[in-house]
Amino acid sequence: MMLRAENIWVVGGDPRQAALAALLADDGHSVHTYALERGGGMECEPSMDGADRADCVVLPLPASGPEGKLNAPLAAQEHEMAQVLDALRPGQLVCAGMTDRALEDMAAARGLVLRDYFAREELAVMNAVATAEGAIQIAMEELPITLHNARVMVVGFGRLGRALAPRLRALGAQVWVCARRHEQRAAAESMGLGSERLERLSDWLCSYDLVINTVPALVLGVEELAALKEGALVIDLASRPGGVDMEAAAALNVRVIWALSLPGKVAPVTSGRYIKDTIYHIMEESEL
Amino acid sequence: MMLRAENIWVVGGDPRQAALAALLADDGHSVHTYALERGGGMECEPSMDGADRADCVVLPLPASGPEGKLNAPLAAQEHEMAQVLDALRPGQLVCAGMTDRALEDMAAARGLVLRDYFAREELAVMNAVATAEGAIQIAMEELPITLHNARVMVVGFGRLGRALAPRLRALGAQVWVCARRHEQRAAAESMGLGSERLERLSDWLCSYDLVINTVPALVLGVEELAALKEGALVIDLASRPGGVDMEAAAALNVRVIWALSLPGKVAPVTSGRYIKDTIYHIMEESEL
Amino acid sequence: MMLRAENIWVVGGDPRQAALAALLADDGHSVHTYALERGGGMECEPSMDGADRADCVVLPLPASGPEGKLNAPLAAQEHEMAQVLDALRPGQLVCAGMTDRALEDMAAARGLVLRDYFAREELAVMNAVATAEGAIQIAMEELPITLHNARVMVVGFGRLGRALAPRLRALGAQVWVCARRHEQRAAAESMGLGSERLERLSDWLCSYDLVINTVPALVLGVEELAALKEGALVIDLASRPGGVDMEAAAALNVRVIWALSLPGKVAPVTSGRYIKDTIYHIMEESEL
Amino acid sequence: MMLRAENIWVVGGDPRQAALAALLADDGHSVHTYALERGGGMECEPSMDGADRADCVVLPLPASGPEGKLNAPLAAQEHEMAQVLDALRPGQLVCAGMTDRALEDMAAARGLVLRDYFAREELAVMNAVATAEGAIQIAMEELPITLHNARVMVVGFGRLGRALAPRLRALGAQVWVCARRHEQRAAAESMGLGSERLERLSDWLCSYDLVINTVPALVLGVEELAALKEGALVIDLASRPGGVDMEAAAALNVRVIWALSLPGKVAPVTSGRYIKDTIYHIMEESEL
Repeated sequence: MMLRAENIWVVGGDPRQAALAALLADDGHSVHTYALERGGGMECEPSMDGADRADCVVLPLPASGPEGKLNAPLAAQEHEMAQVLDALRPGQLVCAGMTDRALEDMAAARGLVLRDYFAREELAVMNAVATAEGAIQIAMEELPITLHNARVMVVGFGRLGRALAPRLRALGAQVWVCARRHEQRAAAESMGLGSERLERLSDWLCSYDLVINTVPALVLGVEELAALKEGALVIDLASRPGGVDMEAAAALNVRVIWALSLPGKVAPVTSGRYIKDTIYHIMEESEL
Repeated sequence: MMLRAENIWVVGGDPRQAALAALLADDGHSVHTYALERGGGMECEPSMDGADRADCVVLPLPASGPEGKLNAPLAAQEHEMAQVLDALRPGQLVCAGMTDRALEDMAAARGLVLRDYFAREELAVMNAVATAEGAIQIAMEELPITLHNARVMVVGFGRLGRALAPRLRALGAQVWVCARRHEQRAAAESMGLGSERLERLSDWLCSYDLVINTVPALVLGVEELAALKEGALVIDLASRPGGVDMEAAAALNVRVIWALSLPGKVAPVTSGRYIKDTIYHIMEESEL
Repeated sequence: MMLRAENIWVVGGDPRQAALAALLADDGHSVHTYALERGGGMECEPSMDGADRADCVVLPLPASGPEGKLNAPLAAQEHEMAQVLDALRPGQLVCAGMTDRALEDMAAARGLVLRDYFAREELAVMNAVATAEGAIQIAMEELPITLHNARVMVVGFGRLGRALAPRLRALGAQVWVCARRHEQRAAAESMGLGSERLERLSDWLCSYDLVINTVPALVLGVEELAALKEGALVIDLASRPGGVDMEAAAALNVRVIWALSLPGKVAPVTSGRYIKDTIYHIMEESEL
Repeated sequence: MMLRAENIWVVGGDPRQAALAALLADDGHSVHTYALERGGGMECEPSMDGADRADCVVLPLPASGPEGKLNAPLAAQEHEMAQVLDALRPGQLVCAGMTDRALEDMAAARGLVLRDYFAREELAVMNAVATAEGAIQIAMEELPITLHNARVMVVGFGRLGRALAPRLRALGAQVWVCARRHEQRAAAESMGLGSERLERLSDWLCSYDLVINTVPALVLGVEELAALKEGALVIDLASRPGGVDMEAAAALNVRVIWALSLPGKVAPVTSGRYIKDTIYHIMEESEL
């Protein structure tokens, strides 16, 4: 897709960012890394000198660590975000993941063109694939039964439910989707999945071996948790505050695994590739 | 879902409407039909007398025929829409498919609660399944090769493309999705399909045995049609004005099948069931 | 696969044989056709002169027509099989489909190396794919419901059942496999299909919309046919004598479609390709 | 399936055997356990007294431990196999997994009807499902990429390959099957998988992220291992002596995971259910 070799700086981050740098180099770009000393890949720059000549500077996901620091768990030392940005020139393209207000203000003050790749729909769609695989891995590790023939309830049918439910079914599970809207349930049925209404969730739960929540709202409260059969596993994929009443689960002795940020954990290299593709889209649009 | 037996009138329409009446009766409702004499099912009412006591009156899809008539191809005679509506009472629920301005005005004048079931998202999602099957049937009938191992391009990745492309792939076709937006292509790839950009369509077309268009815009013009390989088949599922330059296709001797309204043609009983489910949702919401 | 250009004669046959000739030529072989005048492809030889220099001579599927004739429905005139074989030389490789005793004797008398490609397992496996598609096409054409959500019984789980049942399920049908042996039912369940015992077939039939038989034995007799629900469709894919008591079906007004030789009918070009691949395997083995 | 409540003794074994006992009790049978004290389920009998009244005695998989002992890792103490069998009566049905010559001789000497459930084809078919899931779990755990879009080579296309390859593909992997016989490759292609010849394995290996061997013969020797790309993972599912030259792999720094007996490890409860179904088949056949 990228016809031209670009000069790209990859700054900070975890193994995804290290994978991103390697993949960009594989594509023929001139890649510089900074604050990725323990990333196991190419040699890092000693400073940000020269970063102002980059066609694109890529900050990690999330971009910011605590107290205004760059998020750089693989760096040899800590770096102030402000110092990183000071090395850039006005008008320069900076791609960052999960930008917050402080970063946006700093970028604006320096005239940088800041783009949040984590806000891009295509990245969310692909991350749902990696999250679905992570959830399947957890289920396989935790359950003493095969997913084949297991009864699985997927709560919610957005991007993540649509990546997850068909995969579970392809592995032979009997999958029901629980969703609030008629068209979501119709979409589930159009894929050959069963569907149930969300408002009656506790009515249906007693026969399931596995319940996977994808809805960022409290959908598994005391009533629902109490309805689960003994030995059932709950995997909660919803971001904070999560979809499960964890206190009630503990009291009821229900096994709940709250799995966050799976793509970076189970498939850092693929996550780096997703980010690369998204960065390309942003660069392409910036050129227009 | 429907806990109570309701009094429902099914008025006019084609075999879908006849199937709808039978399915509603199977569910235990008290069903009356009118203007469906050749529908092959239950005996029709001689007049609309008593229709004002119905909990719901279902008009066909589309509701209106030419010149203000009820769309009633299975009726023994023609009926004026106005006369049909005159038999109803203010406040009565009337479900109709593809309502037009004239019908809406007539309903408003009589104080009827008119609901267009064809505008419901859940019906559109399910109709996409029947349309996908119809397209597959046409492809099987027309091509001298199996879909297994055929190279198929699906243009567009909305509801219809998402129903169609995975089915083709499940049959063993090599399926590429051509879509404009990054997230549509990401969604296609997340399902294991190939993807291409819409703007470069003519570059990719030469190797395909079958091209199915789902986009309601002229996507297959002279340039694209000329790029097709000999013997390739084009199925256009886009509603009027369609997505293919038919004159160019004729001049280039490209075989194009413009297939409209497939659900009612290939699966009238299933279409009736989809409508029934949607009517239930409308009735349920009307009661709240 | 074929590294060398070979001299191949394609003699007699239907559109599959015509497709075979074209595909062999596409692969770079020197191809001669005979008795295929109305095949719509390359120009036919006026006689078998020169056929004795062929690396391989391909007779059609089936090779023989009535009364010792070559099976040549697309030929300008009839040809005696003996005359065709007289043109060949001892030791020459002749590939034919469904050889019978008469042909084998004639070939032996002339010292020809006769190979029956139709007896090859790999061709049977691929033909099962085309047969499965043909059965799906018939079901789509005949049923007023979608295969999605239809209840389908597949009787038998050999090559054909294994090609057919997963395809039906991928289209959203609820598929049960009825098979005699434990391991066949286990194989069906391992693919996520339901399974039932063959000996109790009539117990299960009442709820099915579609029954497809693949077993070459009378499995649908009076008792089973009487158990079917009204409007159910039976597709019999079993070769003669077939698996359905046709008289009983007529008496009970059960709709049965006995569909034989589907690959050549629904996908002649693909059938020609399957034969080509099999011929290559035979030629390769003959060289060893 | 079992219409009558039977008296069944479950003797020795690992968590699969404990799960089996619980599942048999759930089905309404009168179940006794022995030598399963740490199985976490029902209370064990203090001796084999009364076992001679059982309709069926189930020994574990494998039945025998070292030195003529019963295989009973969950037992409170060791038990001699001879003593266990001494408690039974001539003509009694004994189902055991992986019987060896010593056990067969002891059973024959006591007039017992010994049946090896592990030799049953239906169990092998179902065990392939659990093994396939186990292999997928290992691949997910070990690889830094998603299976979606990974390039995977499955070597062999018997029962296990047929369970594994379609599952990998359903997860979005690009799957090729490498098999020796034409009809195996045809079967792979009929399922929409790619296929390659086994004899040229090393030619194809360089582009794969994951190679899974199912063939019980040395298929991955020095040449093949050397052809793998850096970071590729090999999972060997072949029983002893395995399909990988482990010394060569170590020398070449290729990561190989030799995964044996996965069903009992990753899904003991499901494995117990498979055994239960097989025991039922054996009991049913013994009654005829």
